[in-house]
Amino acid sequence: MSTDALPMVVPAPNLPRRVRIHEVGARDGLQNEKTAVPTEVKAEFVRRLAGAGLTTIEATSFVHPKWVPQLADAEQLFPLVSDLPGVALPVLVPNRRGLDRALALGARRIAVFASATESFAKANLNRTLDESLAVFEPVVRHAKDEGVHVRGYVSMCFGDPWEGAVPLTQVARVCTALRDMGCDELSLGDTIGVATPGHVRALLSLLDGEGVPVDAIGVHFHDTYGQALANTLAALESGVSTVDASAGGLGGCPYARSATGNLATEDLVWMLHGLGIETGVDLGRLTATSVWMAEQLGRPSPSRTVRALGKPTQPHEDQ
Amino acid sequence: MSTDALPMVVPAPNLPRRVRIHEVGARDGLQNEKTAVPTEVKAEFVRRLAGAGLTTIEATSFVHPKWVPQLADAEQLFPLVSDLPGVALPVLVPNRRGLDRALALGARRIAVFASATESFAKANLNRTLDESLAVFEPVVRHAKDEGVHVRGYVSMCFGDPWEGAVPLTQVARVCTALRDMGCDELSLGDTIGVATPGHVRALLSLLDGEGVPVDAIGVHFHDTYGQALANTLAALESGVSTVDASAGGLGGCPYARSATGNLATEDLVWMLHGLGIETGVDLGRLTATSVWMAEQLGRPSPSRTVRALGKPTQPHEDQ
Repeated sequence: MSTDALPMVVPAPNLPRRVRIHEVGARDGLQNEKTAVPTEVKAEFVRRLAGAGLTTIEATSFVHPKWVPQLADAEQLFPLVSDLPGVALPVLVPNRRGLDRALALGARRIAVFASATESFAKANLNRTLDESLAVFEPVVRHAKDEGVHVRGYVSMCFGDPWEGAVPLTQVARVCTALRDMGCDELSLGDTIGVATPGHVRALLSLLDGEGVPVDAIGVHFHDTYGQALANTLAALESGVSTVDASAGGLGGCPYARSATGNLATEDLVWMLHGLGIETGVDLGRLTATSVWMAEQLGRPSPSRTVRALGKPTQPHEDQ
Repeated sequence: MSTDALPMVVPAPNLPRRVRIHEVGARDGLQNEKTAVPTEVKAEFVRRLAGAGLTTIEATSFVHPKWVPQLADAEQLFPLVSDLPGVALPVLVPNRRGLDRALALGARRIAVFASATESFAKANLNRTLDESLAVFEPVVRHAKDEGVHVRGYVSMCFGDPWEGAVPLTQVARVCTALRDMGCDELSLGDTIGVATPGHVRALLSLLDGEGVPVDAIGVHFHDTYGQALANTLAALESGVSTVDASAGGLGGCPYARSATGNLATEDLVWMLHGLGIETGVDLGRLTATSVWMAEQLGRPSPSRTVRALGKPTQPHEDQ
């Protein structure tokens, strides 16, 4: 799939030279799909993502199948993709049982999913915020003892459908707690997509003041209100160089108002490459992968870039 | 339509305090619609946009009906809305004949539509670039003699479907020519939506060096590759305070690869209000207007914000 040598590359000052894309389509994307995706199709999706140059691909979740039936095949899927050279395959684990299942399969990177708000901790995990952190602590500690890399998702960092605005200090408290228990990396989630660029800068500035190093921070924006890429630009300007995105814009948050969810990896790559920022990703191959996945799911990709590049250029003379 | 006191307002440094939104939905939006919209519906659309707080509403185009049949009712529409208090109603004019028609109805603001590239001048106007500028010169001069405010659109500033990348110096040459003939304001168009933030900054920096004042510059981004709002943020950071947008994301460019076109005014307002930038716009009323217009057109708005705010919040306990 040709990208016509576009976008034109024009760097901007004070941005990272290279961005690591944390691809979440296979986990965060497919866990929100109603269509049952066969294990072999998931494995092929992960292989194609790797073939497009993505090097961090969140593969699946070792959560109880009762809660996320879409990913009930984690045990079958993981061994099918775990030998991809040069590709890190983090997996989500909700508790010690999930960690043990992941470790038994040889997982070397895990992620835990915390909340910045009481309401979401209650809705998603049926625990208070402190109770949920207390559950994660032994999980993270044991993972670190096993030499496993741990990512801590912090959801609802910029707003919550029940509480509305979320105080930055509360987000910082959860982030610091996750760092203190040993998380190597945090992913700051705008789960309902309400953030704007000043809000992003303010949170990153506060975390910097609290001693959380910017290279331990990833950002995870949703496009519910169309803000994801502008917020990403603000984060890059604040020094962030790890960005979560979902191939083709798969998935979203079941609590958000709109079906539009994750930032599409293709839209992100278009901006990064235009800015001269290295990603290692081949945009044409990635787009072809998302077109293929959309065919498997039977519906078009919500990514603007996938929709645009999926069509041939047909300049016509009439107007 | 409630916006739930979101987004949370967190200003960012070095941005304009106030942005003037140049609303193009009634002209640029409807001219690209296949559905024939009755004149009274168009008038009601303009009135509702004004009621939502927009103060610059591009109303219609005095181009020959053969080329833009959707706006063939310009003579009937303009008098229906020309008495809206505090609202400027620029109209597009392609030539002296169009200008005379607009002036006869009392129009006080006009816009001409130039191209930054030879290919688009040829395709859109069937003239060379210099020939098209020569046609605009007496139009702009006569308008200025009549005390009319003149906006010069410069399309294809960041890329062209035939030529690919467009040299910044060529864009600057067209911009300077339009300023020299008397244009009060320029609108820099990314007609095919390929720009990225560094490219935007670079063009604005070049124009600054060429003596084009930033307060005479508006930006007109398309969302074909999802870049419009990130590019807008870059333009704001460069001092631009006039931004074109289309209510509900109506319209687009017939030469672009995708149906996704103009930046949606609602998505823009969400970002601006989150940044604490004044617009004078009531987001709830604007969204309601776009929902109403989508009903008239019989298809949903492509604006993410309109889609999200158009639904009730329904947090649910299961996941």
